[in-house]
Amino acid sequence: MTLLVVGSIALDSVETPFGRREEVLGGSATYFSTAASFFGPVRLVATVGEDFPDEHVQFLAARGVDVAGLERKPGRTFRWKGRYEFDLNQAHTLDTQLNVFADFRPELPAAYRGSEYVFLGNIDPDLQRRVLDQVRAPRFVACDTMNFWIDSKRESLLRTLRRVDMLFVNDAEARQLSGEHNIVKAARRILTCGPRALVVKRGEYGALFFTGDHVFAASAYPLQSLFDPTGAGDSFAGGFMGYVARSGREDPDVMRRAIVLGGVLASYAVEQFSLEGLKALSHEKIRARYTEFRQLTHFDDLELDLFENGSPNG
Amino acid sequence: MTLLVVGSIALDSVETPFGRREEVLGGSATYFSTAASFFGPVRLVATVGEDFPDEHVQFLAARGVDVAGLERKPGRTFRWKGRYEFDLNQAHTLDTQLNVFADFRPELPAAYRGSEYVFLGNIDPDLQRRVLDQVRAPRFVACDTMNFWIDSKRESLLRTLRRVDMLFVNDAEARQLSGEHNIVKAARRILTCGPRALVVKRGEYGALFFTGDHVFAASAYPLQSLFDPTGAGDSFAGGFMGYVARSGREDPDVMRRAIVLGGVLASYAVEQFSLEGLKALSHEKIRARYTEFRQLTHFDDLELDLFENGSPNG
Repeated sequence: MTLLVVGSIALDSVETPFGRREEVLGGSATYFSTAASFFGPVRLVATVGEDFPDEHVQFLAARGVDVAGLERKPGRTFRWKGRYEFDLNQAHTLDTQLNVFADFRPELPAAYRGSEYVFLGNIDPDLQRRVLDQVRAPRFVACDTMNFWIDSKRESLLRTLRRVDMLFVNDAEARQLSGEHNIVKAARRILTCGPRALVVKRGEYGALFFTGDHVFAASAYPLQSLFDPTGAGDSFAGGFMGYVARSGREDPDVMRRAIVLGGVLASYAVEQFSLEGLKALSHEKIRARYTEFRQLTHFDDLELDLFENGSPNG
Repeated sequence: MTLLVVGSIALDSVETPFGRREEVLGGSATYFSTAASFFGPVRLVATVGEDFPDEHVQFLAARGVDVAGLERKPGRTFRWKGRYEFDLNQAHTLDTQLNVFADFRPELPAAYRGSEYVFLGNIDPDLQRRVLDQVRAPRFVACDTMNFWIDSKRESLLRTLRRVDMLFVNDAEARQLSGEHNIVKAARRILTCGPRALVVKRGEYGALFFTGDHVFAASAYPLQSLFDPTGAGDSFAGGFMGYVARSGREDPDVMRRAIVLGGVLASYAVEQFSLEGLKALSHEKIRARYTEFRQLTHFDDLELDLFENGSPNG
């Protein structure tokens, strides 16, 4: 089924304890599209400047990403510069130059308007709704956001949330959005705001998935080499939405597998800088790590007679 | 099979955002014994002062905890006073009065010396070895420790580790002990120091279990009411060791179930103050939450044909 993403495309400069890269391909829509492209075609809505290297556009197009919605505008491409310390869960922004992204007014090509699955990357919630207004009858809409929008555009964000099926946030954002410290209570509160499903991303600890009557806890894959966490959340969302769109179903079992696949894509993404980890990926590697995730987390039922025959107490 | 624990017994005064309790029953050996007692008898080695309420001894004895190794000495019982903020993963110690615990020299009753399963609670590593010296032929020895011993008695701790099968630590302790920030590398390093198995406890995020060729990631049960994290780690260890001792086997499948049962016991312990949560527990509740843990974490295999028929890339 058809999958549309709106988000940022950036040139990132990143420092981690393991190295640095200057002006490499980044942005939420880039990571999302690349991760989702393993499962099917993706329609991209984003903006870049005149200085954006053609090779990056060709890379996306070659992966089956429809770039008809990629607008090239006079001016420079969005730049983000950040640093990670040993605690790779926390990005420290050193510099943000919005450039052409500051005037982003997403316009969907006519061919995109029938899209069934929609991912609203982490952009101004006004623009997220502007995209939704242009999609005729979306079947399943997921949305990302961040502390900046929760703080500065709360009312607009709440209006967006009323129109989405699923929200992706991290622990801190879930707490900030809900005003609840306990993550289960935070999730319950958020599920009264519109979304019927919520993913709480917890970095190296994995993710929790909540719906009205259902919780799923996914562990993160314990990685020995974690080089660059940039794009982990968008790779996660890309793996998730790519699989759900390919399945064309949103039942709990599909959602669980989608969460795990999100974790698989994110785990490969962070093993290398920029998009290198995703570029080196294959269907075989996705399947292999998915199987490793099962081996990592599954366990048998208890013996039926465990508490019989002389077991005290209870 | 026979299970022995050495550790502290304390009177705890605890403040959390949800309330406070004064001089309630606490200590590593207390939580461990109570949790383990659901699976079989426990032999306790600990010390208390003249002021220790008899009702607590009777409580333990009534649960099948052998108190022959509980030494009552002139002086006051160990007191600990602590506070938790909303981040319940982190205890802030307000006051520690070791009292009779300062002169603890564990002596095993003759009947304890044939114990097969041994848990060395978080005490001076010299004393941990003193206990081991008195056990004739332990089959499986597990050990807890903390930042204080890693820092102040590192060499002694390393001598203890060479004699244990399994170590329980939290993330920060694993990093401190190994000098590695990455938790997988930290685990690999620790497994060269003696233990053939390692549990890294991650509070509300769950636990990782490592052996030479095997990793298991257990999620914590997402709790809506978490009142008092005191004793969570010892309840975890008690559930783990109680189950392993009852099984009489240490193969990977038993270890996985034991980790999950540790999480079950810990989850109930933290839902109420002091030992109230464990006191209210039953075999039925243990089994019910174990089943919930499976439902919480399990997911199906991927469709065999997922990447066939028009799936791009890969």
